[in-house]
This record gives sequence, C-alpha cells and structure tokens, in this order.
Amino acid sequence: MMQLIKFPEKQQWASILKRPVFDNTALVETVQSVLDAVKMEGDAAIKKYTAQFDGVELKEFLVTEAEIATAIALVSDDLKAAIIQAVANIRQFHINQLAPVEVIETMPGVKCWRKSVGIEKVGLYIPGGSAPLFSTILMLGVPAQIAGCKEIVLCSPPNKSGNLHPAILFAAQLVGITKIYKIGGVQAIAAMAYGTETVPQVYKIFGPGNQYVTCAKQLIQQQGIAIDMPAGPSEVCVLADATANPVFVAADLLSQAEHGADSQVLLVTDSLTIANQVQIELTNQLENLSRKELVIKALNNSTCILIKYINEGIELVNAYAAEHLIIACENAEVISNQIYNAGPIFLGNYSPESVGDYASGTNHTLPTNGYAKAYSGISVDSFVKKITYQQLSSAGLNNIASIVELMAEAEGLDAHANAVRVRRINELKN
Amino acid sequence: MMQLIKFPEKQQWASILKRPVFDNTALVETVQSVLDAVKMEGDAAIKKYTAQFDGVELKEFLVTEAEIATAIALVSDDLKAAIIQAVANIRQFHINQLAPVEVIETMPGVKCWRKSVGIEKVGLYIPGGSAPLFSTILMLGVPAQIAGCKEIVLCSPPNKSGNLHPAILFAAQLVGITKIYKIGGVQAIAAMAYGTETVPQVYKIFGPGNQYVTCAKQLIQQQGIAIDMPAGPSEVCVLADATANPVFVAADLLSQAEHGADSQVLLVTDSLTIANQVQIELTNQLENLSRKELVIKALNNSTCILIKYINEGIELVNAYAAEHLIIACENAEVISNQIYNAGPIFLGNYSPESVGDYASGTNHTLPTNGYAKAYSGISVDSFVKKITYQQLSSAGLNNIASIVELMAEAEGLDAHANAVRVRRINELKN
Repeated sequence: MMQLIKFPEKQQWASILKRPVFDNTALVETVQSVLDAVKMEGDAAIKKYTAQFDGVELKEFLVTEAEIATAIALVSDDLKAAIIQAVANIRQFHINQLAPVEVIETMPGVKCWRKSVGIEKVGLYIPGGSAPLFSTILMLGVPAQIAGCKEIVLCSPPNKSGNLHPAILFAAQLVGITKIYKIGGVQAIAAMAYGTETVPQVYKIFGPGNQYVTCAKQLIQQQGIAIDMPAGPSEVCVLADATANPVFVAADLLSQAEHGADSQVLLVTDSLTIANQVQIELTNQLENLSRKELVIKALNNSTCILIKYINEGIELVNAYAAEHLIIACENAEVISNQIYNAGPIFLGNYSPESVGDYASGTNHTLPTNGYAKAYSGISVDSFVKKITYQQLSSAGLNNIASIVELMAEAEGLDAHANAVRVRRINELKN
Repeated sequence: MMQLIKFPEKQQWASILKRPVFDNTALVETVQSVLDAVKMEGDAAIKKYTAQFDGVELKEFLVTEAEIATAIALVSDDLKAAIIQAVANIRQFHINQLAPVEVIETMPGVKCWRKSVGIEKVGLYIPGGSAPLFSTILMLGVPAQIAGCKEIVLCSPPNKSGNLHPAILFAAQLVGITKIYKIGGVQAIAAMAYGTETVPQVYKIFGPGNQYVTCAKQLIQQQGIAIDMPAGPSEVCVLADATANPVFVAADLLSQAEHGADSQVLLVTDSLTIANQVQIELTNQLENLSRKELVIKALNNSTCILIKYINEGIELVNAYAAEHLIIACENAEVISNQIYNAGPIFLGNYSPESVGDYASGTNHTLPTNGYAKAYSGISVDSFVKKITYQQLSSAGLNNIASIVELMAEAEGLDAHANAVRVRRINELKN
C-alpha cells in the first residue's frame, strides 16, 4: 500500500515529489504517420484507421439526428436529471467568467477596451474505452457554448457496433455540440487539425486521451493549432491535520487511484494517527471497489508524507503543484490563501474531489504533472480570444503623440514615429 | 512595391493570404545542443556561449544596482517622462484585467469561487540587436507585476562592451523586474527553463526573439515549461474605405514594414482611388526613413487587395487573422463588431498601430501568423493561474450527493461515488 515517509528533509522533497517521466519519442513516428495520412487522404484514411484501431467499418462518421434521438431514449430519467442539474451548476459557475466590456480612457481622447470573442471553431476529443466520459463533454461543451464558439465539433471513438454511448450523445446535444463524429485516437486529432471532406478544421483542440492522442496534440501544436494544455496522469494531494476524517480521506485517495495504475496519490499530514487510520481505511474500502486491482497498483506507487508542522506541509504542497488539492484541515480557508500552486482546491471535510469532477460547477479539465505552476484549468477563457480595441480622437492622438515619437525614435523605429507625426501635422493644418 | 490584386475570387483567398512557412528543422539540433549544455553545465556553458555568440567575456551576468544607477543617469529626461507616462497608461489598462473574486453558490451549501494567483516565477526575454526594445519590457513587466508574480527575471544579450542599453535597465527597474541578467539567445532561454547557479528556474517564459530563440522556446515547451505563444513575423492589415486618409494608411504600412524584410503588410480596400494614392504615398514617405532598404524588401512582398464591397473585406480580414488590424473606415466601430479573428483592432483615422505599440495602454505582444484565430495577446491573464475553490457544508454535500453518485456510477467510477457516499452516511449518523 502507500509508502510512509516520516519527516523528510527539504532537500529530499524534489526526489520524493518527482513524477514518473513518460518518454513519447518511440510514439512520434507512428503518430506522425497517421497525422500525415489523414492530412493527405482525408476521410479515406480515417475509414482505414477506424477499421484498424476501433475494429469497425463505418460508412459515415457524422452522428445523425436519428441516432441522437434513439440514444436519448436509452438514458435513464434519473441520469438525465442528474446531468441536467450538473450542467446548470457548471453553467452558473462559468457564465460569471465572461468579463464585461469596460472602456478605459487612459489619456483624454485615448479610449481602450477589451472584449472576449469566442474562438470560431473548436474541437473536443472524448476518449472511449471502458467508461463513457460524458462528464468531460459537459466540462468542455458548457464553456465553449458560453464563449460563443460557432462550431463545436466532438470526436469520440465508436464501439465495435459502430456507435457512441447514449450518455455521450445525450450530454453532447444538451450542451450544444454542433457536430458529433464517431472518430477516435490520432485520426480524430488529425481530422480536426487539418479538416477532411466531412470534418471541419478547427483552431483549438481540447480533451483528454491516451499517450497516442497526447502525442498527436503535441505535434499539431507545433504546427500552430492551439491545444488546451499539456497532459499527464491524474493526481490528488490531500493535506490533512488531526481534524480530518480518515474515512473521507481514504475515500478521496481511492477515487483518484481508480483512474489508472499511473494515478498519483499523495497524502501530506502532521498527524501520525491520521496517517495510520487512513492506511487502515484504504484497506477496508478497497474491498468493495470494482476497479480494485487498478487501485492497488496505483496505491503501491503512492506516498504518505508525515510532516512536523502544517506550514511545512503548505510549502511541500506548493512544491508539488497538484492537479487536485484537498485541504482537510481545521482552518482550510486560511491555508488555501497560502497555496499558489494547485489546480482546484477543495476545502474542508465535505468537499471531496468527486463533487468537482461532476457537478459542483467548477471545471474538471486541469493541469497535471506540476503544470499547475504555470497553467490554469479549463474555463471560458480557454474558448475565447480577448481582443483589445482602441479609438483615439484627433485630440487624443495629439495628447499621446510626443510620447510615442520619443519612444519609437529611441528604439530606432522612424516609421513608427512617423505614423503619429503625419497625423499630428494633419491635425495642426486643419 | 505592393502588388495590387483586383477582385479576387473567394477560392483564391487562401493562396493570396498564405504566410511564408519557416521550417526550423535545420535549427533543432544546434538549439537542442545549447539547451543541453546549459542544463548540464550551468553558468560555465553560459559563459562559453556568451563569448562565442555575443563576443564578450563576462564574469558576472547579474546586473548590479550600481550598473542600474549609472544607466538611469544616462537616459534623457524626456525619454524617462515618456516611458513613465506609457507605464501609467499600460498599468491603467491592465489593472482592470484582474477579475474580482465572487463566491457563487451553485446549490444550497455548495460554494465555488475563482481567484487569480500570479505565476510564482516568470522569465522575460528581450532581444538585443540594433535597437533596444525597452517597450517590450513594459508590455511584459507591467502585467507580471499586476499579476503578483514574485520572481520576474529578465534576460537580454550584452553588447560588445558587456552592457545592456540604459533604456532597457531604466524600463526594467521601473516595472519591478526582480533580477536582470546579461544573457542572450538560446542560452538565456535554457538558463530560465532549467535554472543555473545564478539564474533561477522559472515556470513560464515570455518575449520575442530570433529563429533560434523561437525554436528554443518551442523545445522547452515540449518539456513542460509554459511559453507565451507561438511566434512569427510581425504583420499589419489595414481595412480602408474611401474615407481613409492615404497619407495615414501609407504611414501605418511603413511602420510595420520597417520591422524587417519578412514583415507582412496587407491593405484591403473597396476604393481603387485609395489603393492608388496609398501607393504614391508609400513612395513619398519612404524616402526619409532610416530603414529604407529593409522597408522596400518588406513592401515588395506585400499585397493590396481591391474588393467590391466592404463586407467582403470583413470576411477576408477574418480569414487572414492579422496580428494588428486597422479599420480606416467611416463606420469603424460597427465593422469591429463583425471581426472575430484579429489581435488588437485600431479604429478610425487617428488610431495608428504605433500608438498601441508604445503607449495607449493596450499590449503589443500579440499572436502573429494567423494565431489570432485561437490565441490572445498578452494580458494579466498570461501571468496568472485562475485557481478554483469549492467549499461544501455537510448540507451542501447532501444536496449534490445523488447527482454525483449517479454520474460516477454511469461512468463506471465506483470510488468516485463512494467518496460522496461515505460522507452522506456519516452525515445521516450524526
């Protein structure tokens, strides 16, 4: 189970907190060849790879209205109601992220403002596999819709019968996805990056995926297509003091561990009692989990760090920059103000990560692998360009002219100074 | 001079608007070897490359307080005053970009909020060469300072005497740069990406540079260090109707052209008179420019597109996604609301690009090469992580529990459902 490290020296932190490094060099050639084939041959290449990788021959990739209607009927009313409430919460939280336009007159007659404009065309990738990740459709689709993106394309791999899971289709129509395609893997990323006869080219691609999909996103990013953020295995860090509930902490660690054998699970606590009780609870709760074997593998790679003071824990947590941080401490809110490297922060004993994963309203597409030091999770910001505008009156131009001329000349840029000068001269003539 | 294309068919747009493609494959090996050397050998490698590429042997890279004081005394009072006013305008425009924290209760007892937290350590790169680009220090340093970044490192190549230009140092101290290093090129990017004995490692690197610097930024981005945005040659597009002033339009095109022979200059107009008058004005104004030869080269690669209706021009301008867009039309504001792909937009006859380049308050670090389709220019957003927070009361957890459980189970994630369930059971017991 979890390895317990007691009172490590600060110099040891870097090696204790080190993430596994995945080298994708071996994948690049394969992934590039699929990208190139789709770029050259379009739909024909997608048909070929779908047969090869997904094991199904498809004539059409675009999901029809009829397919969507059939799927909607298959989703239980309970699940529908839950998804609808989750969408309402996500929308309520995200709609607030659209900044209002405010005109700022920096000098008399010099008006500047900034407006969020939706990226015209975006692509969302949703992996297939054992579970249908419809929650990620909500987390990407809702902010895309709020941002005002005109074309919101979704790609997800078909199952062996050539279909998408009904919950995927229900979620997609609910959040206003404009086109849904039964295309998976690298071929999906290629289709959205380059466009094909049936799939429109998009300007930014979002969503999780396996190592091949991640590699494809990296490669197309180098070609100028924007991507949401770099990817890595999912992680949770729990910072717990003696007031934490070991049953809850164990449940949170397990919910992260079930994502996969490479999931990162970290417990930081100043209480040996909590550390020991959590270990016991992990064993108890583990028994009833369907993904038990996966969970054990993840836990075996996991660490509990015992620290002397919670302040040291705060520093350690900042050094780690977890994708999800749960603060199960008495003064969670005070501590949260001292955290500057983390994805979302869950405060107190009644804020488990899974609430944020599905329904509280915050986004669950987040920076892993320490990227929280520089990257934010997905928000409406991710789906807009913030365009600036400026409008000067002739008086405004006169007010600012000498500043621009002096600076431009000091940078050796004559023509920049001249663009102001010709307008000033003209103004003086009038 | 500019090539005039009259009334092109829509199918021709893509080829007319095509940017030059720069293939950096040949650079990768050289750049990677410099990155690797700095990563392995630290300051020793930087000393070696500074001698080799900048032609100067330096014992210390860190600029001292004494050097800064000496430099400040060398900057003219006029230029100082101009820079100080520019900083005031930039600060006034950018400070408004810090979104206030607002707690949103998405369901009773489910509180969510979002806070902007400055990226702890950032690095700014400012190229050397013929002109000291101190204006870029303002454009990066002011938002970094507003964001609350704790460490703001600046690297810029030393001249042959081992110094930085006084205006660089004046601007740097003015906007709160915490450490200034006399390091240039790929070795500067490497120093900030990996850290050395004297240069701290940063989490995100900003700033323009030549093809080697650009390549280095791409490579370190793949290693998980964030960068501001992809780079490309600078561009301006002017959309002009018959009310435009050809003197002003020519001056604006020239101010872009003087950036370099690879600068992109595009005029789109529905007035043949304007097209012809601008050509004449270009020739007139060109004569007095110090960078005349560079300008001629850039203009020879430039295009004027004559269109039938301004609406067609709007569509064309959106297809191009210019780094800078000047709307020299009677109803500039109405047109600007129909533009969704552009960096900043300059409205009307008295809003030249050079005003935004230096002093109006908007940022001048912008997406070139069509990246404005997906990327924004630099703002305070670029220097913060937007961290989300959530705090549920036990009642809040109960209100949302069944939604989370239903969705988690439908995704096959037992332990996610369990993390909510154990809390609910506990609550019922109490």
